[in-house]
Amino acid sequence: MVDITDINDALDDVREALTAEDWDRAIALVEAMRPADQAAVFEELSPDTQSELLPRLNPEDSADILEELSDEDAIEVAGRLEADDLTRIVNKMEPDEAADLLGDMEPDQAAETLSSIEDAEEILPLLEFSDDTAGGLMTSTEVLLHKDITAAEAIQHLKTAVPETGIAYYLYVVDDDVHLVGVVSLLEIVVASTETCIDEIMNPEVISVQARTDQEATARLMARYDLLALPVIDDNNHLLGIITHDDMVDVLEEEETEDIYRLGGVPDERVTPTVSPRIAMRARLPWLVLNLGTAMLSAVVLSLFEETIAQLAVLAVFFPIVAGVSGSAGTQTLTVTVRGLALGEVSPRDGLSALSREILIGLVNGIVVGTLIAMIALVWKGSPILGFVVGLATFINLIAAGFAGVLVPLGMSVVKLDPALASPVLVSTLTDTLGYLIYLTIATVFLLRFF
Amino acid sequence: MVDITDINDALDDVREALTAEDWDRAIALVEAMRPADQAAVFEELSPDTQSELLPRLNPEDSADILEELSDEDAIEVAGRLEADDLTRIVNKMEPDEAADLLGDMEPDQAAETLSSIEDAEEILPLLEFSDDTAGGLMTSTEVLLHKDITAAEAIQHLKTAVPETGIAYYLYVVDDDVHLVGVVSLLEIVVASTETCIDEIMNPEVISVQARTDQEATARLMARYDLLALPVIDDNNHLLGIITHDDMVDVLEEEETEDIYRLGGVPDERVTPTVSPRIAMRARLPWLVLNLGTAMLSAVVLSLFEETIAQLAVLAVFFPIVAGVSGSAGTQTLTVTVRGLALGEVSPRDGLSALSREILIGLVNGIVVGTLIAMIALVWKGSPILGFVVGLATFINLIAAGFAGVLVPLGMSVVKLDPALASPVLVSTLTDTLGYLIYLTIATVFLLRFF
Repeated sequence: MVDITDINDALDDVREALTAEDWDRAIALVEAMRPADQAAVFEELSPDTQSELLPRLNPEDSADILEELSDEDAIEVAGRLEADDLTRIVNKMEPDEAADLLGDMEPDQAAETLSSIEDAEEILPLLEFSDDTAGGLMTSTEVLLHKDITAAEAIQHLKTAVPETGIAYYLYVVDDDVHLVGVVSLLEIVVASTETCIDEIMNPEVISVQARTDQEATARLMARYDLLALPVIDDNNHLLGIITHDDMVDVLEEEETEDIYRLGGVPDERVTPTVSPRIAMRARLPWLVLNLGTAMLSAVVLSLFEETIAQLAVLAVFFPIVAGVSGSAGTQTLTVTVRGLALGEVSPRDGLSALSREILIGLVNGIVVGTLIAMIALVWKGSPILGFVVGLATFINLIAAGFAGVLVPLGMSVVKLDPALASPVLVSTLTDTLGYLIYLTIATVFLLRFF
Repeated sequence: MVDITDINDALDDVREALTAEDWDRAIALVEAMRPADQAAVFEELSPDTQSELLPRLNPEDSADILEELSDEDAIEVAGRLEADDLTRIVNKMEPDEAADLLGDMEPDQAAETLSSIEDAEEILPLLEFSDDTAGGLMTSTEVLLHKDITAAEAIQHLKTAVPETGIAYYLYVVDDDVHLVGVVSLLEIVVASTETCIDEIMNPEVISVQARTDQEATARLMARYDLLALPVIDDNNHLLGIITHDDMVDVLEEEETEDIYRLGGVPDERVTPTVSPRIAMRARLPWLVLNLGTAMLSAVVLSLFEETIAQLAVLAVFFPIVAGVSGSAGTQTLTVTVRGLALGEVSPRDGLSALSREILIGLVNGIVVGTLIAMIALVWKGSPILGFVVGLATFINLIAAGFAGVLVPLGMSVVKLDPALASPVLVSTLTDTLGYLIYLTIATVFLLRFF
């Protein structure tokens, strides 16, 4: 049995062998591991050790490692390999992974590798499609069944072709012109009587995608219908390839990370906790500068009221409350809306009902929170008018936060931008600036008159 | 072929038939749909229509719908059904889904249903485990293979048992005492020669989990090793059940939503954009009140400096910049750390290296952003000392934001709390309060003396 502690121990053993430069032991240990663990160990090695280790492993394991590494890491590692080592390894890669790697490599090196590998004709068609589409995710189909063969012939065909284990849980059925006409599970073939024709047991209602479908839509389709594999077709319903479940899981994870990062103000999802600080700085700095720009808007508003603040400094004490609480309310609404858009629970045509919902929530929560704040201001600073002003400003701003939290992400989605991308900075700018404006306007009108 | 537009059209047709109270047409349309779409249509109906429609559908479709609904919705719908309708439907549910439903229902109704359904002995053992553990996710295994049978016998066994399609891509191999000893894919059995013994072709290195393993760890394990199914064992390595890939995808999606919601200040992930505004208000209000409490900390700090602000109101103009930019930097660090913890890329033992990394990033970005802000203050307000104070405060606070963004989530993780839960509010409280404190302290020391 395998558990996580065992895996961590195994990683430690490999590190130890490599530190001691005991190559044979390190190779034996790595070759005994599962691909995901091999890649985890490999990622932690220095570039020099990586370049030394990879050609010494058997090509299947090296291929697995290149497949599991992030795209950026794989290109770097592959770029440092000798031409014939690279060819040996790419020969053992899955066609879709090989196509991803070659498509991202230097054109010269890619062309040289393509000219010397065995299955170039399987990889070449995959190179046409962009990485972030269904076509870019698909791999070539190893086994197709013709609709007119029998269950026994299908099994015979499988025994001859011997596809890689794990791929053939679904088999796709085609006609004479390789049009996709059905899907049948291996189990259905096995339990059918031998003379049954495939088109009697297949399901003709196959869910499929066009090659240019976006990768996130593709993955969500697979998740929605619990699909282990998804066939990819061209405009004429010719079967081009299939997408396997591991790609679906990777894409969903990648897209979730992208959303979480964008909502958190890190617009480049490659900035994992392990990239070099240099890259992390470069990715984050522009966002901070953009934020500085939007904070300037609030500063300009405050500047308009400098005189009011000078006369009544206690007003400034409540800035964090007026801006902070409605900022939080805006972020809440934004978060629910962005996630709803990603999961397909909300669409721009629900805009009006989402908006009225959020205004209602803002109204009720605004009354509760506004009253609380008014009471705090009253008790703390002993002024009922100050309490009234702070409470009223918070109340109005909570409703405004509901507006912004719905309209900004829906607007981004209408103009085909990722709602998660610019929303947090836009929403908090709106709630902050509006908060100060409302608060200080009310204060100037009431307080300076009645205080 | 199926695509998203077709699905939306189909949904519209059903809605139309239901509005026209054409039950036969509505039922025919719903029964022709896939489970996920059936549930999508069903969710939008009024409780009355739901209670009328469900018993009229054939029990397989009704079972699919209950399985696809959220846990809360399923309990509500089930609770309104007549006892014998409920029994007919639960009879057709997957054992794991039936156990989830019965486990969450009123004890009386659950006991009554259990006493009348056919496969109670399959469901009862699943009721022991908490919903959010591996045991709660698993379903009972329909087909087990004994290690000493041949490939031909295995296929014969499958033909007799006829498990539900889609489950039997992996078959688990046990010994006389139902200890898990291996795994074999259906394809491997099919391509093996008929007299081969199962224990010759099986893989004895099965990845498995204990029944009490947390559901997120379980799902991440399946994703890491690209597993379509995962066997669940007890302390003595007895096979208790298997977890299928659709549960993995659901758990990952649920956990991502939870993380995104928590980071966005919505601590209850059931508050989707479609729950009633009443529930949404109740879920969000406590968070806003908590935020009000933390914003009070900043307000108290500001209150200490009321005199400084009264003397120099221009200081308040830069509040949004000093607090806002470092708040963004803290959120960036926090986001990367929380996501890294969730994906297993960071662990608390990496604390020191993560911390020095973030301090370095804060240092460099602090110099850039601090200088920019200082220049803005100088040009805008014409005071080099004001520029110096604002810039220096921002610089120091960006480094503090790096500290907080790493230490808060790692600390939460050390004490076994979800890092995403309290982090945003803690981190922004820290950066805000610290920001005001640093800024106004420097200002009091320098500005009042030299302005």
